[in-house]
Amino acid sequence: MDLVGDRADLPLRSDCPFCPGNEFMTPSEVFAIRGKTPPNGPGWSVRVFPNRYPAVRSDGDSRIRCGDSHCRMEGLGMHEVVVDTPDHDASMAEMAEDHIASVLITYKERYDHIASDGRFKSILVFKNQGLEAGASQHHSHSQIIALPFVPEQISHELHDCSEHSMGKGEGCAYDDLVRDERDSRVRMVIDEGQFSVHCPFASRFPFEVLVVPKKHAPSFVAADDSELESLAKVLRDTLRRYAKILDRPAYNMYIHSAPCDGYEHRYYHWHVHIAPKSIKFGSFEIGSGVYINSLPPERSAEALRSAGP
Amino acid sequence: MDLVGDRADLPLRSDCPFCPGNEFMTPSEVFAIRGKTPPNGPGWSVRVFPNRYPAVRSDGDSRIRCGDSHCRMEGLGMHEVVVDTPDHDASMAEMAEDHIASVLITYKERYDHIASDGRFKSILVFKNQGLEAGASQHHSHSQIIALPFVPEQISHELHDCSEHSMGKGEGCAYDDLVRDERDSRVRMVIDEGQFSVHCPFASRFPFEVLVVPKKHAPSFVAADDSELESLAKVLRDTLRRYAKILDRPAYNMYIHSAPCDGYEHRYYHWHVHIAPKSIKFGSFEIGSGVYINSLPPERSAEALRSAGP
Repeated sequence: MDLVGDRADLPLRSDCPFCPGNEFMTPSEVFAIRGKTPPNGPGWSVRVFPNRYPAVRSDGDSRIRCGDSHCRMEGLGMHEVVVDTPDHDASMAEMAEDHIASVLITYKERYDHIASDGRFKSILVFKNQGLEAGASQHHSHSQIIALPFVPEQISHELHDCSEHSMGKGEGCAYDDLVRDERDSRVRMVIDEGQFSVHCPFASRFPFEVLVVPKKHAPSFVAADDSELESLAKVLRDTLRRYAKILDRPAYNMYIHSAPCDGYEHRYYHWHVHIAPKSIKFGSFEIGSGVYINSLPPERSAEALRSAGP
Repeated sequence: MDLVGDRADLPLRSDCPFCPGNEFMTPSEVFAIRGKTPPNGPGWSVRVFPNRYPAVRSDGDSRIRCGDSHCRMEGLGMHEVVVDTPDHDASMAEMAEDHIASVLITYKERYDHIASDGRFKSILVFKNQGLEAGASQHHSHSQIIALPFVPEQISHELHDCSEHSMGKGEGCAYDDLVRDERDSRVRMVIDEGQFSVHCPFASRFPFEVLVVPKKHAPSFVAADDSELESLAKVLRDTLRRYAKILDRPAYNMYIHSAPCDGYEHRYYHWHVHIAPKSIKFGSFEIGSGVYINSLPPERSAEALRSAGP
């Protein structure tokens, strides 16, 4: 696949720090897919640099200090920005499959690099598309945050996978889940190549989907080029279905992968969550941890199947 | 205190279902504080009716049905709307203390009534102020949702209170927490009457506060008139400090109270959470369960103390 592209006809913005020609407005790049061009100038198709406003910092201290009533740790971690495309206005739904694959290869490259640091226990690769979904820049980008602990959502999934496995004689929770969804069909959206896409039972949001690789692996870094190409295809397909139903929707996307804490986590099965931004989080959601979803996953799946190519 | 008011000079909106004169636009009231006026017409100062778009329904079935891979229950519950004031534009920060007390008395009245139904395990009283905080109507209102299960957030707090109590020989986690905050002072905002207000350690949001009654009680329904008057005073004071710092901020407020499931929950201590709406929930928050807060609680508390009357 062609991972290097440089188009002179792109709509650029002089005030956008993510547009080619404005590389001086960001921290120095740590990775880029680019032709024979020097770093921190134009000529890239995907570009990665440390977040200028990091949530966590790599010079933090991982020691936990406990006082009388609380324990605290410095904000140790890594926080990088992946500019997905030189095109100021293109969303991932509008990119070529090859280009999406090159974004995924970039995710994997950085994931691998950050995990090798050894101080972090968990890495979250995610994308906020659209201002309503939490993006602070219009220009399509993703983010990678490494944390010195395993966050709640991953920890719950690890627990569930482990429980499921013990109850079912070594079975994988996600393999069993996808098999059931494939059998019943009502929540299945796409089932082709090396991935399936379905609207999860008791979805939290309308049109929420789970993208699950057919090959069992705890960590996203286990995905090979052929899997990433297959993932690019289903991601593009899913996002284009969203676009048909919802008219350039804002959405949230994140990759859940096993912790990089040195343990095997062999019962875990990496996957991707995607959901269009549909609700404002109010007091009920924040105060209860419960989500109110006005569109059942069975109906979301039906609409997404009808919006197929 | 004067619980009944009817002002002819209020700015009303012909299209607002919560304004006096438009009672026909809502379901029939189930409770109101009103003078000698008939139900479902003007003359009230606080008015309660079932939500026209309920998240849960009282005619649901509480039986859990399990299939091969999932269990499900009908959406049993209660969902009511409390219109806080006849005034279309008044936010709680601008109401008189007496009036806020009458809203709190209404909360308690409905809480008590709904708990007596016997089918619900948990009741959440909450308020979304402003469209950004999740409100669907501009006119100030609160909501009450009863659920047939104990939601995650309450369940975590119950667990923590129980653990704390076992470790400290019958001590209450919230009593101990407030004592520590009072001693260190750095996160304390208000400490007067029967309540204290502080910015919690590791706050999730800038200016987030916890309002804790000094009298230990698991459930909000244990609060007597004098406590509700004192709570009205500190709520008004807190919201006016928000207004000084943030210019009519949108905010979320919810009361955490022990489940009404027939158990005593004597280690739990009811309280109120309030936080101005400051962030959009993006993929990181949804995918990790971790919050990034750019303003430490110590600095939030300092600003809120300086904004005092």
